[in-house]
Amino acid sequence: MNKIIFLIQSDDQKGLLAQITGYFYRKGFNILHCQQHTDLRAKKYYMRLELDLSDLSSSRTDLREDFAVFAAERGLIWSCDFSDTTRRVALMVSKTSHCLYDLITRHKEGDIHCEIPLIISNHPDLEYVAHQFKIPFFCLPVDPKQKQLQEQQVIDLLRRHHIDLVVLARYMQILTPDFINAYQGRIINIHHAFLPAFQGANPYLRAYQRGVKMIGATAHFATEDLDQGPIIEQDVVRVNHELSPAGLKKVGKDVERMVLSRAVQAHLEQRVIISGNRTVVFPNEH
Amino acid sequence: MNKIIFLIQSDDQKGLLAQITGYFYRKGFNILHCQQHTDLRAKKYYMRLELDLSDLSSSRTDLREDFAVFAAERGLIWSCDFSDTTRRVALMVSKTSHCLYDLITRHKEGDIHCEIPLIISNHPDLEYVAHQFKIPFFCLPVDPKQKQLQEQQVIDLLRRHHIDLVVLARYMQILTPDFINAYQGRIINIHHAFLPAFQGANPYLRAYQRGVKMIGATAHFATEDLDQGPIIEQDVVRVNHELSPAGLKKVGKDVERMVLSRAVQAHLEQRVIISGNRTVVFPNEH
Amino acid sequence: MNKIIFLIQSDDQKGLLAQITGYFYRKGFNILHCQQHTDLRAKKYYMRLELDLSDLSSSRTDLREDFAVFAAERGLIWSCDFSDTTRRVALMVSKTSHCLYDLITRHKEGDIHCEIPLIISNHPDLEYVAHQFKIPFFCLPVDPKQKQLQEQQVIDLLRRHHIDLVVLARYMQILTPDFINAYQGRIINIHHAFLPAFQGANPYLRAYQRGVKMIGATAHFATEDLDQGPIIEQDVVRVNHELSPAGLKKVGKDVERMVLSRAVQAHLEQRVIISGNRTVVFPNEH
Amino acid sequence: MNKIIFLIQSDDQKGLLAQITGYFYRKGFNILHCQQHTDLRAKKYYMRLELDLSDLSSSRTDLREDFAVFAAERGLIWSCDFSDTTRRVALMVSKTSHCLYDLITRHKEGDIHCEIPLIISNHPDLEYVAHQFKIPFFCLPVDPKQKQLQEQQVIDLLRRHHIDLVVLARYMQILTPDFINAYQGRIINIHHAFLPAFQGANPYLRAYQRGVKMIGATAHFATEDLDQGPIIEQDVVRVNHELSPAGLKKVGKDVERMVLSRAVQAHLEQRVIISGNRTVVFPNEH
Repeated sequence: MNKIIFLIQSDDQKGLLAQITGYFYRKGFNILHCQQHTDLRAKKYYMRLELDLSDLSSSRTDLREDFAVFAAERGLIWSCDFSDTTRRVALMVSKTSHCLYDLITRHKEGDIHCEIPLIISNHPDLEYVAHQFKIPFFCLPVDPKQKQLQEQQVIDLLRRHHIDLVVLARYMQILTPDFINAYQGRIINIHHAFLPAFQGANPYLRAYQRGVKMIGATAHFATEDLDQGPIIEQDVVRVNHELSPAGLKKVGKDVERMVLSRAVQAHLEQRVIISGNRTVVFPNEH
Repeated sequence: MNKIIFLIQSDDQKGLLAQITGYFYRKGFNILHCQQHTDLRAKKYYMRLELDLSDLSSSRTDLREDFAVFAAERGLIWSCDFSDTTRRVALMVSKTSHCLYDLITRHKEGDIHCEIPLIISNHPDLEYVAHQFKIPFFCLPVDPKQKQLQEQQVIDLLRRHHIDLVVLARYMQILTPDFINAYQGRIINIHHAFLPAFQGANPYLRAYQRGVKMIGATAHFATEDLDQGPIIEQDVVRVNHELSPAGLKKVGKDVERMVLSRAVQAHLEQRVIISGNRTVVFPNEH
Repeated sequence: MNKIIFLIQSDDQKGLLAQITGYFYRKGFNILHCQQHTDLRAKKYYMRLELDLSDLSSSRTDLREDFAVFAAERGLIWSCDFSDTTRRVALMVSKTSHCLYDLITRHKEGDIHCEIPLIISNHPDLEYVAHQFKIPFFCLPVDPKQKQLQEQQVIDLLRRHHIDLVVLARYMQILTPDFINAYQGRIINIHHAFLPAFQGANPYLRAYQRGVKMIGATAHFATEDLDQGPIIEQDVVRVNHELSPAGLKKVGKDVERMVLSRAVQAHLEQRVIISGNRTVVFPNEH
Repeated sequence: MNKIIFLIQSDDQKGLLAQITGYFYRKGFNILHCQQHTDLRAKKYYMRLELDLSDLSSSRTDLREDFAVFAAERGLIWSCDFSDTTRRVALMVSKTSHCLYDLITRHKEGDIHCEIPLIISNHPDLEYVAHQFKIPFFCLPVDPKQKQLQEQQVIDLLRRHHIDLVVLARYMQILTPDFINAYQGRIINIHHAFLPAFQGANPYLRAYQRGVKMIGATAHFATEDLDQGPIIEQDVVRVNHELSPAGLKKVGKDVERMVLSRAVQAHLEQRVIISGNRTVVFPNEH
């Protein structure tokens, strides 16, 4: 069944739920699923609605324009997506294959709904993975002296391929503010630590040195501040004194791939609202 | 803030969400929180609504009678509770104190909102716990030949104390159908295994013999069929070959108390709908 | 560093640890790691020893023959493996690719140490996966009337390829006792439920019907009794009322792949001792 | 069965395991359990041995003196404890009862083996808990201008009661170096965050602001550097956008009590070795 998905946020207002559901009822829509959260502390209202696309009696543009008027009167920030429109995702990697393999095998198995028109790397190492799955691979090495030149090439590729979402699947480069601003809220990074612990480089070595009893990973939207963007998903795994930094790294790979793929799925299923430096992630249903 | 909580279930119908939220909007209510689930497979609709009690402009009886008319027209099964009405909970135990201590210390700390007017046991062993917390304790031993006699004494106590919920906090007796029917959907039991595995007696010994790598606990509504009632909450803990049956039992205690207290809290917060042999448990928010 | 790994089990005897470690000390070995477990209840002794291979001053055959004498005097059941000897693993699949992809990408990334000389399936569907990773693929369909004929072909392939371990990575066929006896203790199966719950067919549908709040997966050695063999690894994931049987199946895939790969790794790292219908799985260290 | 427990650490040396087990074999001891870890990176050797106390043929002092000679020749750092000697534990609290209740009910149920001769607090709030369980309660308020005066009173109490272990069960005061040095390696603190994330004050508020998807707790030995001591145990729980700081605090209480009680049990069962700023925590067996 194809669906229309609305994500809505606004200041909290009395009667908003009734007004919004009433709006769609009058338009002849069956609401398949309604998820709603009111942050009483911040006086903020968040909502996700799934409508049955087959109830749509106008053009999609008309729906958007009509809702825009309704939304403007109430100060709603909103987006509207159609589940029959496939998002286009670019994967960016360096030398480690585990997150890359995880995402593309899930995609192949039909568990991540998107297109993956290209893989971009600053190293040639993972070209064979792209070949195995017949995905175009672009190797764009970074010259530290001319970092922005490479970034411009990357942005050109993303634009030419009409990319909606950039996934940094262990792409070990810091992006410039220009890049991040060009894809605000559309770059998901995986950090190999349980943020805010062990921000920055070598988290597994630092986890070993600190003697923590669990290690984790964090998927977040990339922002100008390194490892500071809104968190989408986190998870951890228990470790013990027997594991060396290399052992932690190996064990951590499983957490990294799980966390990143859950975050990408949440975003592609229109379940994530960014609100300041926090996210509202509505749980999935099938 | 005091709240009115509606739990609603019905066959799925187009426009139900808009109609229900519209109903409360017209009555002047702010909907603080709306949780909704449609089981597309079973064509069932489930809903939980939190309203601001201070918006109530009629008597509580009037609200109930008025909504009853609205609900009857649409075939809704529903309940309406007020958060300023405290539920009265009876704890039933045998000889093991861990679940009992857990529930009454949470109650003492203000994390479980209810009254606990009495503790009932078939053994005298835990009277000292009741004394510590100044809760009336009734010891009603079970004579296997006259089981129903004791049950009648229990029911008399429950009625005299206006009990809303019976929690079997490791009460190692099988209840008769008469008892269960008298408190249908209002008896929560903790089984010390991950149901449906290890139903019945000695689950830890059987878990040891089977060599499982995790053990669990299950909180469910008691029904006529032993360990078959609707499950409210489950959890597990990792174990290994080093643990004897006694070791499993000790480790399992933590899972038992967590699972039972979460189930009791969910029920007391009006977050559980029973639907056939399954439950809908809406997540908590604070 | 290359290692010699001894797995030892016997009835418990006073001084066994000192005698065994003393034996290797006299032979000039440094014991890198010693893991030991005494089941006081069953009066059984289990041990895993890692020795530094570079300390070996005789031939491997001499070591085995010499230790055999020592072991016979004490009634030890034992095995001796060398970490520079790579095990040969056959993967058997049907139509679902998630466990297959998981195992071969981990292998490719160097996290599972073995050779995978062939993939065997009763269906042609996953041949493309074998092609992607350049692994020979054999499609041997099962004729229900002549099941043993196909099994004989499978066994011939396993023998010709000198297979040490057979991994049933969602191979949806029941093996005959002849097959199982030919590879006793060397066939690992993944069952898509938390055994002993939901043995047999359609576990996700039955989990949905029972309304469980967690679903799981179990990796075990295949024995003549379906889903009854010694358990190597289990894990679970939390689910809720929103998930249909298809949703449970999708969520369960992650547990299946994690559990199976952990079990295979434990076996390949010589960390698993089978003892009756239970296993001793020594934790890994790196 | 009563046991002698040796904890041993040293620089790694060839043959150490054989020499140590041989030593106890010659003394006529049955080794019930041997746990051993070699940190190849740091070239450190760690060991825990459980001996059957009934095998002891000399006085305890003789055993210690004899082993001291053996240990000195090899540079071993070691401790020797007897399971029939009960440790004496002081609980220090402020105003929150959940960790206190958890520890004393576990103690009451026989799951934590120690004596609890007294509870010390800087506030009178929890005196009723001490009364319920008939444990002497000492209220020693802190005058910020004369902090050391109160600490001296605490230390006097600890000494007079022959305290072996101090558990800071949400004692919201920073201890002076003098106090910490007097009980080096014998003060366990619970921090209500997943260290090293959210060190210091108000971790739940900061977790809310950062928008983390899991919160945790950490039990560690107190050292002069706040929240920097060797970690004994950590755990986490999943949270979401619906939880306010107060909601996080409530959910976090369960993690705090579990983590603290596991750490205290590990220490009391002689399973913890401190090594620099890290710990080796040997798993428990029953």
